[in-house]
Amino acid sequence: MNAAPTLDDVRRAHLRIAPYIHRTPVLTSEMLNRETGARLFFKCENFQKAGAFKSRGACNAVFSLSDVEARNGVATHSSGNHAAALARAARLRGIAAHIVMPNNSPKPKQQAVAGYGGQIVLCEPTLAARERTCQMLIDATGATLIHPYNDNRIIAGQGTAALELLEEIPWLDLVIAPVGGGGLLSGTALVAKALRPHAQVLGAEPAQADDAAESLRSGHIVSKPVNTIADGLRTMLGERTFTVIRDHVDDIVTVSEAGIVQAMRRMWEIMKIVVEPSGAVPFAAIREHPALFAGQQVGIIVSGGNVDLDTLPWIEKPRS
Amino acid sequence: MNAAPTLDDVRRAHLRIAPYIHRTPVLTSEMLNRETGARLFFKCENFQKAGAFKSRGACNAVFSLSDVEARNGVATHSSGNHAAALARAARLRGIAAHIVMPNNSPKPKQQAVAGYGGQIVLCEPTLAARERTCQMLIDATGATLIHPYNDNRIIAGQGTAALELLEEIPWLDLVIAPVGGGGLLSGTALVAKALRPHAQVLGAEPAQADDAAESLRSGHIVSKPVNTIADGLRTMLGERTFTVIRDHVDDIVTVSEAGIVQAMRRMWEIMKIVVEPSGAVPFAAIREHPALFAGQQVGIIVSGGNVDLDTLPWIEKPRS
Repeated sequence: MNAAPTLDDVRRAHLRIAPYIHRTPVLTSEMLNRETGARLFFKCENFQKAGAFKSRGACNAVFSLSDVEARNGVATHSSGNHAAALARAARLRGIAAHIVMPNNSPKPKQQAVAGYGGQIVLCEPTLAARERTCQMLIDATGATLIHPYNDNRIIAGQGTAALELLEEIPWLDLVIAPVGGGGLLSGTALVAKALRPHAQVLGAEPAQADDAAESLRSGHIVSKPVNTIADGLRTMLGERTFTVIRDHVDDIVTVSEAGIVQAMRRMWEIMKIVVEPSGAVPFAAIREHPALFAGQQVGIIVSGGNVDLDTLPWIEKPRS
Repeated sequence: MNAAPTLDDVRRAHLRIAPYIHRTPVLTSEMLNRETGARLFFKCENFQKAGAFKSRGACNAVFSLSDVEARNGVATHSSGNHAAALARAARLRGIAAHIVMPNNSPKPKQQAVAGYGGQIVLCEPTLAARERTCQMLIDATGATLIHPYNDNRIIAGQGTAALELLEEIPWLDLVIAPVGGGGLLSGTALVAKALRPHAQVLGAEPAQADDAAESLRSGHIVSKPVNTIADGLRTMLGERTFTVIRDHVDDIVTVSEAGIVQAMRRMWEIMKIVVEPSGAVPFAAIREHPALFAGQQVGIIVSGGNVDLDTLPWIEKPRS
């Protein structure tokens, strides 16, 4: 239980969740290849159920539970995509999902959770309040905690995106994924290094939320104030994800806020896909550090596409 | 030469253009199925080369030319996606493309044409000026005219989108495509009726540009003032497209301007794809006329994704 997940765990997860997720397409763009000097393969998890890769881990965790563990439902605290993905997975299994959300979380995110039948409990917007409220809920309901990333079932589930990518494009030289709590990056790294040991695995992170890069450098988990438009990447690593990333990820590269917005806009404009800021961070890294990628076959995990279409970062005055 | 294209013409076009176009994905959405009560299969030509199905017809026309016909290049007048697609196809064949554009056509569209190496000649924004300027260019250069839709090679090329769709989803009950000049709808109709005679074929058109619907009702091509956000659908039918549509299309349904914007936004939000207003018109038709589609397996040609991301119709005050 304490060892990191293996490729076999990811393969089992893939079979388990196959009925509940999309096998997302891998898109390419000659124009973006020309612009970057690399050959880019975009694994489009923005097309995933509930709009993000989070559905993979959430489904794997929920469908891994024994009937006894599942009986009283699941619980988590999250303001983002994990909340909606967990609510959806719980509904598919026919159990309750108790979701603690900060009371300042955006209405569309609350609506998404409610739309999948999640039972929302609002709390003060601090980590302490979120954890305390979640624990109280678990004590009261007997629900099973499904942590957003520091959980082997979640890591194995998120790894299935890279598994599909490498099944489809086996000749990649390099795989890059965004890193927030590290569930996606750790799952990606253990799959890529198992299937293709010579491939590099990079994490991509906002420079203004570079706690993972600093954790990798310093050898222990770093917590620091963060401030980035990439709302999915504001969390710090957990013990489990840190260990996998330390052992399997070659490096973490950082990008500017302006670079994230430009990369996001370019993907909308040229690829015609809606990606959220977090999902554009790896492509921003390729644009800001071209020498690392030039001439290589690069797999990119595009993590999600949940954005508020009323407030796009390149349009100054949205409807109020 | 005067007979309408056949399924064989479309199959030949498909082989001819295969090296130069994307086989675009067919996307589905459980949520939009639930909302509409139909099963929807979106053929995503917004992912096509140059951002629209127009690349299919343009490549077919350009690569159908004899070396003698091709020698002096091609010419057209267009303010939209056909111009960029033709410039791209000509560059692929290594010949010149002379593109007459109205002097009020948006800068991004001019840039797209220039980006593909097209030689732009600006003229007054009237149909008469466009046709006159184009004819002068042809007289001066010896270029071959490639009309945007009233051309059998174009119709056969545009039909390849429906061919791919029906190869992938052969059990469709109904296929719907937007109608402007009618190249896409006529190509779609002749493929669908040949491969699946019992399937219905519908056109979708803005109510404020319902010249095709009126043409179908009255039995002759109607020209009338139009005013719609769907900039790809402001043209009238040609003799060739009218004939195919009259003979093979079951009906043309119309949609409101507000319905187009709502459908477009819903596709961005739920499907995470960037579609232009014209590309959202068929989905708008499904939302506004649900009884026509309920319970059916519906194929939708999503025509294109070229939008100006600075001015989205649901955001009031764009950057000026």
